[in-house]
Amino acid sequence: MDIEQFVAQSIGEWRSMRSGHSLAFQQFEDVLSEISIKEFIDDTNQLRELIKASSQPNESHYISPFSMEWCAESDWEPDDPSEVSSGSCIILPIPKDEQSGKLLRSVGYAESVAAESEYRFLDDGTFILKTHYDQSIAEERIWFVSDHVRCRSSVLKTSEGSGILQASFASEVRKISV
Amino acid sequence: MDIEQFVAQSIGEWRSMRSGHSLAFQQFEDVLSEISIKEFIDDTNQLRELIKASSQPNESHYISPFSMEWCAESDWEPDDPSEVSSGSCIILPIPKDEQSGKLLRSVGYAESVAAESEYRFLDDGTFILKTHYDQSIAEERIWFVSDHVRCRSSVLKTSEGSGILQASFASEVRKISV
Repeated sequence: MDIEQFVAQSIGEWRSMRSGHSLAFQQFEDVLSEISIKEFIDDTNQLRELIKASSQPNESHYISPFSMEWCAESDWEPDDPSEVSSGSCIILPIPKDEQSGKLLRSVGYAESVAAESEYRFLDDGTFILKTHYDQSIAEERIWFVSDHVRCRSSVLKTSEGSGILQASFASEVRKISV
Repeated sequence: MDIEQFVAQSIGEWRSMRSGHSLAFQQFEDVLSEISIKEFIDDTNQLRELIKASSQPNESHYISPFSMEWCAESDWEPDDPSEVSSGSCIILPIPKDEQSGKLLRSVGYAESVAAESEYRFLDDGTFILKTHYDQSIAEERIWFVSDHVRCRSSVLKTSEGSGILQASFASEVRKISV
C-alpha cells in the first residue's frame, strides 16, 4: 500500500458510525455522519499556500491531494439541530518514501487549526497518522476490511504523551450508487 | 513484540469501554465491562485436553497460557440485571515463529464453542487474530497505546468473507492498585 493507492481507495461517499470513549469519565458518544472524500483538482494555488504555511520546503513534491467533507449528528442533543456539526478540509500528502511522509491539512482533527502530520504504512497496509497539536497528540489508524468498509481509530494524548484523553473508533461503509 | 511479551503486558485487571457497530442497521451498543487476565498455571491437563480437541499435533509446544474473565453490562436493558453477562476462558498460544502462530481458546468470542485462531504481529507490535467459526470469520486487532491503555477492534464477516456483519472497538485501561 502506498499513499496514492490509499487515497484512491478512500475516494467516495461514506456512512460513518463513530464512537468516542472519554476514558477518564467512562462516557460514550455515538455519532452518525456522512463523509465525502474527493480528489482535489481545483486550485493548485491553494495547495501551494498550504505548503508555504507549513514547515515543509516550498518546492515539496506532493501527490494525490484530496478534500474531505463531513456532516455529523451527535447523540448528545439529538433534538437540537444546532448539534449537527459539519466541516471540510483539504489534505495534501507529501511522500518521503513509499511507506511514509507528511500530510498537510487545512483544518486539523483535534484542534481547528491547520495541521501537519506524519504518516506511515504498516506491513499489512494499515495507515498510521500522528499529529502534534499545541495541547495534544493525535494518533489515528485507518485500515480497509474490504473494498467498501474501512475502520478508523484515533487516540488523543496530552502533549507530554503520558495521559490518554480520548479514544474513538469509526466504521465507515461506502455508499454504493445503484 | 512476541507472544510472550504481549501476554505479559496484558496480564492485569482492565476496565473496558466497548462500542459495537451493527453496520446493516446502523445501531450502536455501548458496553462497560471489567476484564481480568491472569497467567494460567493451574492445570496442565486442561491445556493438553485443549490441544487434543484442536487440529494441532498433541505434542505441540505452547507458551504463556492465560485465562480471561469478563463481566459486562450492556446498555440495551440497563435496569435488567440479567443483562449483565460474564464468562471466562483459557487461552493457549502455540507459536510457529516469533511473529505468528496459533491461539487455542476454550470458548470462542463470536460463537460459544472452542476456537482455534491464527495470530501474527505487525511491524509496530499490533496483534492480529483471525478466527474461523462455522458461520463467521472474526478479525481482531489489539495494540497498546501506552503501558496501561490498549485498544481492541474486531470485525465480524460472513464465512464467505464478503459481508461485514459487525465492527466493534474497545478501549481498555488497566486498573492500577494504589
